[in-house]
Amino acid sequence: MSAEKLSFEDFEPGRRFLLGPKLVLAEEIIEFASEFDPQPMHLDEAAGRASILGGLAASGWHTSAMLMRMMADSYVLNALCEGAPGIDLMEWRKPVLAGDTLQGHSSVLEARPMRSRQGMGIVKFRHAVENQRGELICLSENSIMIRMRPQQDTSMSSELPA
Amino acid sequence: MSAEKLSFEDFEPGRRFLLGPKLVLAEEIIEFASEFDPQPMHLDEAAGRASILGGLAASGWHTSAMLMRMMADSYVLNALCEGAPGIDLMEWRKPVLAGDTLQGHSSVLEARPMRSRQGMGIVKFRHAVENQRGELICLSENSIMIRMRPQQDTSMSSELPA
Repeated sequence: MSAEKLSFEDFEPGRRFLLGPKLVLAEEIIEFASEFDPQPMHLDEAAGRASILGGLAASGWHTSAMLMRMMADSYVLNALCEGAPGIDLMEWRKPVLAGDTLQGHSSVLEARPMRSRQGMGIVKFRHAVENQRGELICLSENSIMIRMRPQQDTSMSSELPA
Repeated sequence: MSAEKLSFEDFEPGRRFLLGPKLVLAEEIIEFASEFDPQPMHLDEAAGRASILGGLAASGWHTSAMLMRMMADSYVLNALCEGAPGIDLMEWRKPVLAGDTLQGHSSVLEARPMRSRQGMGIVKFRHAVENQRGELICLSENSIMIRMRPQQDTSMSSELPA
């Protein structure tokens, strides 16, 4: 099972993959923000408390990146993925604060062969991530290009002679 | 001018802000990918060349984070921004490869007062980023919550007595 990666055919609509759990540390929030989103509420506990976010809060772009890492650990690294054309939906519903634990799931919404690339399909996922209080913090949809099972595998899988 | 930050009122539809330039280093691509998107084409030059991306390529989530940093340096850190509810559109049009230089602009699409938050408006931007060959590598839209100019400023600005 670990020898053979998931292919396009394995991503049937309705299939779900668990995401996380991921504990979000204050240092991680500050490190990401320092490089990519140095707004005060993402860098400093007091500034975060004074903001509408209510505490040291992860940049939404950091939350998105953490979602990607949870996807990678759950199924992307175990599948014949060839990248993604973008993000269709990304809603940061509630602040992600230092000390929060994130978990959720990705669900396959649809899967179709690509016309422009032979042997490849595109799979659209919905990702939902909650915090430790069960509050939805992030809702997202995006599509990933995934290779189909090599044709030779199909012919080899007919174990019984006619 | 540097003393007073941009407020909601300054983001009129059609106003444009320059983004970048930002040189993308191989080490940055690998560092981001190691933490958030450890797929082979984002970690290794040879694996990138063997992929449909054609070289060591930044994760799309990294490109998105670099866009945020360019926005921060261009106008977000100089405005009364209060965060964003998410991303409305994010298209990764072409690979971002090690050594590429990114630049582009954000344009204000629309600006409206928020009903749910007194004294705050929401500004929708379109972001377009190109590489050094003028190829569009990223097209995005998202909205940012921005505070209105404090009311006292308005009354103080009536310089002439009646």
